[in-house]
Amino acid sequence: VALELTLRELAERLHGRLQGDGDLVIRGVAGIREAGPGEITFLADRRLEDWLARTGASAVILPADHADQRVPGIRVADPRAAFRIAMEVFGNGHRLIPVGIHPSALIGPGTELGRDVSIGPNAVVGAGCRIGDGTTLLPGVVIGSDVRLGAGCLVYPNVVIREGTEIADRVILHAGAVIGDDGFGFLTRDGRHAKVPQLGRVVIEEDVEIGANSCVDRATTGVTRIRRGTRIDNLVQVAHNVEIGEDSILCAQVGIAGSTVVGRRVTLAGQVGVVGHIEIGDGAMVGAQGGVTKSVPAGAQVSGYPATPHGLARRMYAALRHLPDLVREVRRLRQRLDDLESQGGRRP
Amino acid sequence: VALELTLRELAERLHGRLQGDGDLVIRGVAGIREAGPGEITFLADRRLEDWLARTGASAVILPADHADQRVPGIRVADPRAAFRIAMEVFGNGHRLIPVGIHPSALIGPGTELGRDVSIGPNAVVGAGCRIGDGTTLLPGVVIGSDVRLGAGCLVYPNVVIREGTEIADRVILHAGAVIGDDGFGFLTRDGRHAKVPQLGRVVIEEDVEIGANSCVDRATTGVTRIRRGTRIDNLVQVAHNVEIGEDSILCAQVGIAGSTVVGRRVTLAGQVGVVGHIEIGDGAMVGAQGGVTKSVPAGAQVSGYPATPHGLARRMYAALRHLPDLVREVRRLRQRLDDLESQGGRRP
Amino acid sequence: VALELTLRELAERLHGRLQGDGDLVIRGVAGIREAGPGEITFLADRRLEDWLARTGASAVILPADHADQRVPGIRVADPRAAFRIAMEVFGNGHRLIPVGIHPSALIGPGTELGRDVSIGPNAVVGAGCRIGDGTTLLPGVVIGSDVRLGAGCLVYPNVVIREGTEIADRVILHAGAVIGDDGFGFLTRDGRHAKVPQLGRVVIEEDVEIGANSCVDRATTGVTRIRRGTRIDNLVQVAHNVEIGEDSILCAQVGIAGSTVVGRRVTLAGQVGVVGHIEIGDGAMVGAQGGVTKSVPAGAQVSGYPATPHGLARRMYAALRHLPDLVREVRRLRQRLDDLESQGGRRP
Repeated sequence: VALELTLRELAERLHGRLQGDGDLVIRGVAGIREAGPGEITFLADRRLEDWLARTGASAVILPADHADQRVPGIRVADPRAAFRIAMEVFGNGHRLIPVGIHPSALIGPGTELGRDVSIGPNAVVGAGCRIGDGTTLLPGVVIGSDVRLGAGCLVYPNVVIREGTEIADRVILHAGAVIGDDGFGFLTRDGRHAKVPQLGRVVIEEDVEIGANSCVDRATTGVTRIRRGTRIDNLVQVAHNVEIGEDSILCAQVGIAGSTVVGRRVTLAGQVGVVGHIEIGDGAMVGAQGGVTKSVPAGAQVSGYPATPHGLARRMYAALRHLPDLVREVRRLRQRLDDLESQGGRRP
Repeated sequence: VALELTLRELAERLHGRLQGDGDLVIRGVAGIREAGPGEITFLADRRLEDWLARTGASAVILPADHADQRVPGIRVADPRAAFRIAMEVFGNGHRLIPVGIHPSALIGPGTELGRDVSIGPNAVVGAGCRIGDGTTLLPGVVIGSDVRLGAGCLVYPNVVIREGTEIADRVILHAGAVIGDDGFGFLTRDGRHAKVPQLGRVVIEEDVEIGANSCVDRATTGVTRIRRGTRIDNLVQVAHNVEIGEDSILCAQVGIAGSTVVGRRVTLAGQVGVVGHIEIGDGAMVGAQGGVTKSVPAGAQVSGYPATPHGLARRMYAALRHLPDLVREVRRLRQRLDDLESQGGRRP
Repeated sequence: VALELTLRELAERLHGRLQGDGDLVIRGVAGIREAGPGEITFLADRRLEDWLARTGASAVILPADHADQRVPGIRVADPRAAFRIAMEVFGNGHRLIPVGIHPSALIGPGTELGRDVSIGPNAVVGAGCRIGDGTTLLPGVVIGSDVRLGAGCLVYPNVVIREGTEIADRVILHAGAVIGDDGFGFLTRDGRHAKVPQLGRVVIEEDVEIGANSCVDRATTGVTRIRRGTRIDNLVQVAHNVEIGEDSILCAQVGIAGSTVVGRRVTLAGQVGVVGHIEIGDGAMVGAQGGVTKSVPAGAQVSGYPATPHGLARRMYAALRHLPDLVREVRRLRQRLDDLESQGGRRP
């Protein structure tokens, strides 16, 4: 069952440069510490440099400029990205994914596919889309009309991307994520909520990753934007017209309400909630379950509900544990004061 | 690629009355402020009346009784609803959706489809269902047996509706929502949890909207019910046997535990949690992240954990910020009292 | 439309022993209290014993060793499990599910299917998988390569199981759940987050149930493990390398961060959050919305944020309601003390 490729064939597939014996047979991929014979690994983190001599792997995906000339391998610009493709090829990804387009996939009229696009079974792509080189859509993905997906994207099964969404290169969308769903907008009159058509869209920049079953809503008008390099975990809610800066981290089950602007290199820990129409400055950090009710300055660290500078929050919650004792202490003090007053000098 | 319709053809499609030049070519839709030549817009909100003269749109969907006789357009009973259909037609919705039933869709035996039902690729509808006029199922929707879906419903991709669910007219279910999943019910004996079969169902009334990846569980026995006009955002959990009244708002990531009754015109802000077997009265509001642990009277506003009347909660959390200072202050008072006592009149 | 089976045919389907009239026609299933003519029910809970004489059902699924010899029925080892199969057969489950494999289902090379496996329309199973006897995959399920699924599993529509996942017997995965998605792991250098390939996997033991749209992430290396009998509700996040013990309960919207170890018979109520790299001891309970920031001993009951022993937490939050009054009281005490000091004995 397992796929076999020669190192030469794999080098072609990865658009890399062959080093060493091109006839070596590769049957799978693994981490540099775990790999064994017949497997290819990769070296991207220079702290793992020592492992190059020790790995059990038959071959290594190396940076283009790496000094080593002896190990059988493939030289590429981005070993990590190439390894991810190798994972797919050998089915650590999904062996079902055909090279090319599965016959059950549906592609709308006017949609343009780049080179080496793979589209899995039962995927549906709307009309007027553009899908970049080397992008992979896994089974059951549904993409509306006029969507742009960059090069080297990986879209896991059953993801839904609604019409008009724009996604840049090397974006990863995990299973069940929903991108470009309607914002939650209503006009309430006499207590009834009329739906406001959501005419905006979602823009996701390069190297963003969005977790399983997470939701990024389209803007009411204008754009909901997630900037380059931001990583979003599972079950996260990003509401309409939110903007998130570069290289931020949103942990699982975070929720951000409408029109809030989150800076770059911000960290929101698990289950954090952020109200709408505020700003979270660059480099700010919000502790797990924090409830952010007003803007947070750049570099600030806040936690708790309502979110408070982290040092104060720690003292608050430590003091809270002693609050029942404090109540009793104050009662005792009052009693002693009563006694003193009644005993000693009465007030004039 | 783009679809073109004459204004006359579109009027027929929307079951509306033509006003002005029927040969006008329409190629898309947009909001009244953004629209340009070749696009149709709509007027529903009378506060936007002024825009009728200023819009760049070629035509306008108008209320049936609107005074203007000059602008090219289509008169309908509900301009907002008609505009939504126009969005679909022109693929601001999903151009892939065929008029009619896609050949890859599967319809179970005994299922009855109303007029103008559209069913997208790879949708699966069970046996014995009834789907109302003009309802649209997008790709990858899976519907169990004996489901009733009213007229004018819009079911986004990869939604799952389990067997026996009953859904009224004009309901919108966003991508990935799961309706009628088993309630979370077990019989625990000797520490092991035996599953209790969940034999009830879900009933969703008219004009309800349910967000992406939200879940509404079926009742253990009886009914989980969401009443007319209630709007539910993404990633919300509604447990078995919950009832939610008319025109309520549940923001993203809200969770309601089993058998709780939520009144009408209630607002639950983002990430609110509500325990089971309580009541939230009509018109009540719960602030973001509030944890509701006991019943809330009609009209009350509560927030915090455990949820507390909003005014008190604000004072509580403001005071909490000063709690570390208060602890120190009490320590100082005790010291002063010690001094006074030792200095002055000793106790008898 | 409705399916009809004789009691004899149904007994064969359930691998049970017929008792009474084998020609009885059965058309559906229901609970013992609700069932009527033509329906079959089941008796598993001995507390419902009395209902055996009173039920309106035409037949009953009984424990193999039950004393009653008169009621028409089917004797099986596990009446609850048999009833679940009967629900499927009669389409309280999903009548669309074929006996056998739907022609639109795709099965990868080298995948082995057990006896009586049912695979619904548009399901996709990768290469090198093993699916156990009697397991059912509903429409739109996507399974990666090298997945093992035990016997008697039930996988609801649009579930995604990523490559290499191992699932034991009688596991239920509800609609939209994502099992084996990448852990949320990055290497941050110069403020940029490089993705760490997630090479581990997920192991789910016997009799586990996982709710709709819940996510269980694969380990970075090694295993994310959920042990026998644990029940997980909807929209729950279980991060990479987490371990959960036997017979635990995780209510809706719980989130557990990476590498945390949860014991057996633990209860995490709704919306609980647990930080990474800690331990929650056997039998511990965490109250709804609790934020667990450090390890919890076995048997402990904690709640609140940060999670605190339940008794103390109750006193804390009760005292918190009186905190604004306490602040005023302390102010008054200070005033009285000022008066006393100025009035009486001045300090030396």
